[in-house]
Amino acid sequence: MRAIVYGVGAIGGAVATALSKNGIEVIGIARGAQLDAIRENGLRMRSPDFDERVRFDCVSDPAEIDFREDDAILLCMKTQDTEAALERLRAAGVVEQPIFCLQNGVENERIALRRFPNVHALCVMLPASFLEPGEVVGWCAPRFGMFDFGRYPSGHDAADEALAKAFEGSMIEPFVADDAMASKYGKLLMNLSNILQAALGREVDYKDLSERLKAEAIAVYEAAGIAWKDVSAADPRRDALMKTGEVPDVPRVGGSTAQSLARGAGSVETDYLNGEISLLGRLHGVATPLNDAMTRLGARLARDGAAPASLERAELDALIAG
Amino acid sequence: MRAIVYGVGAIGGAVATALSKNGIEVIGIARGAQLDAIRENGLRMRSPDFDERVRFDCVSDPAEIDFREDDAILLCMKTQDTEAALERLRAAGVVEQPIFCLQNGVENERIALRRFPNVHALCVMLPASFLEPGEVVGWCAPRFGMFDFGRYPSGHDAADEALAKAFEGSMIEPFVADDAMASKYGKLLMNLSNILQAALGREVDYKDLSERLKAEAIAVYEAAGIAWKDVSAADPRRDALMKTGEVPDVPRVGGSTAQSLARGAGSVETDYLNGEISLLGRLHGVATPLNDAMTRLGARLARDGAAPASLERAELDALIAG
Repeated sequence: MRAIVYGVGAIGGAVATALSKNGIEVIGIARGAQLDAIRENGLRMRSPDFDERVRFDCVSDPAEIDFREDDAILLCMKTQDTEAALERLRAAGVVEQPIFCLQNGVENERIALRRFPNVHALCVMLPASFLEPGEVVGWCAPRFGMFDFGRYPSGHDAADEALAKAFEGSMIEPFVADDAMASKYGKLLMNLSNILQAALGREVDYKDLSERLKAEAIAVYEAAGIAWKDVSAADPRRDALMKTGEVPDVPRVGGSTAQSLARGAGSVETDYLNGEISLLGRLHGVATPLNDAMTRLGARLARDGAAPASLERAELDALIAG
Repeated sequence: MRAIVYGVGAIGGAVATALSKNGIEVIGIARGAQLDAIRENGLRMRSPDFDERVRFDCVSDPAEIDFREDDAILLCMKTQDTEAALERLRAAGVVEQPIFCLQNGVENERIALRRFPNVHALCVMLPASFLEPGEVVGWCAPRFGMFDFGRYPSGHDAADEALAKAFEGSMIEPFVADDAMASKYGKLLMNLSNILQAALGREVDYKDLSERLKAEAIAVYEAAGIAWKDVSAADPRRDALMKTGEVPDVPRVGGSTAQSLARGAGSVETDYLNGEISLLGRLHGVATPLNDAMTRLGARLARDGAAPASLERAELDALIAG
């Protein structure tokens, strides 16, 4: 198996590091300063007990890759960029190769499946941050994290087993699962608070709102008959594999939505996180006012080019009440 | 009710004409030469027994509109442009206003519902073409066409009744329907051949392939438990309302996919037409090889900037066999 890691940000960087270190051939697809840095010096990845620089091939577009039958394609961009990425893969001649969706939310698999036959869901449990071009950091040890994955919409096949083998003994623990989407719906519950962290910052207490966002989502899942698996801190696998720690000289930065705002990316993933709950609620007749408000807030912050932590808790409360 | 017609192409043009003529206030949202032409001279619409020029306000972006509570927003762009349009509506302050999805396919409603609470499905039965800036043509008489519409995912509400009232006695016959999506799934069966017409041209016989595309889709609908309504030539409502005719001095041009290729739009709607059948087939375990091949073909023709009717039937057959 050769791994095509499409999008070498925090997650893509951790994946490329884990696989390269494990002797798997990796081709990354990255852009701009990140591409330049990786080509020049490789990628430095740190975690509480890891600090290494790995080298792997990196290109700027799928068209530069001579795709092989044994390629596994790992999508590591954000949902709002998935469609354009799939178009580039299609233009490069990809058809039958397995496509693994590592992104947050539960829509990427559908977006891919209308264009490609062989789509896999992968639930990423791996807190990591992009630091600067050529440098990413993971926050857990002894492993960077763990992945639940399988065929979409359900089951698993030889491509999942091949990917599990590639990760075996690496810094990422693989779990082949017939219900990988249940893990992704479970993870979505956690990601509903990304917008709170992005808007308010890490220092503000918003636990009450997180709980309300989750409660709305769980009511929606029940109405829609959607199975979900708790992959939060309560997941016992985390005890042995994923202890959160400090990384020397690296301050803890925000989650993926906060990072999008910090970069001024102009778009955030909120439509596919809180917006997914709004969509399901509207389809199944369950009110989700807080997720609705957070979806609108995410769009507004991205549109306005707001910095992370630009909102006071009181302002947010007023916005929710209004 | 005021109508915001977002995208004044063939369908948007027919809608703006029918409503304006019926005394309804219309604001169009259009771009480039089309915007300039409508502003300067209004819009000329012709059909077998109609030739008039109507005037209505037209802007280039939702931000120029002071939205009101009684606005009904009619989305008339193609699916690949829906997301960007919704983002512009959100930026302009739209929240609660009803959003009617007039586009082909069945995905627009989902795309809208994750961002807006009040989404309506509208099935357009109205063959029409964009001729040149400021001119559109409809191919049926005595009405341009007819619309089935209701709340998404099902039912109907006061916004549907208000829209029906706006169209009452106009050149477009409105039908409020609790199962408007069934009409849209029925129309999708017809749109599966858009790519054939675009690739081969109107003169080539491809009826056998159309039938195979439809048969795959119907098998998929059955497996997925999707209800659909026959809105094709067999729909008895067409006899009284929609007789296809000639429009003096106007040659019959191709359907919407052919028109996208002719414009060199760089994208086609195929991912949401044949690709929808592929997606449903993959979700429900039904093989859809011909729709899969047509989805790939649509992407290729758009990417290559191919002209309409650029493929021979023998080439197409070879491509399908391969």
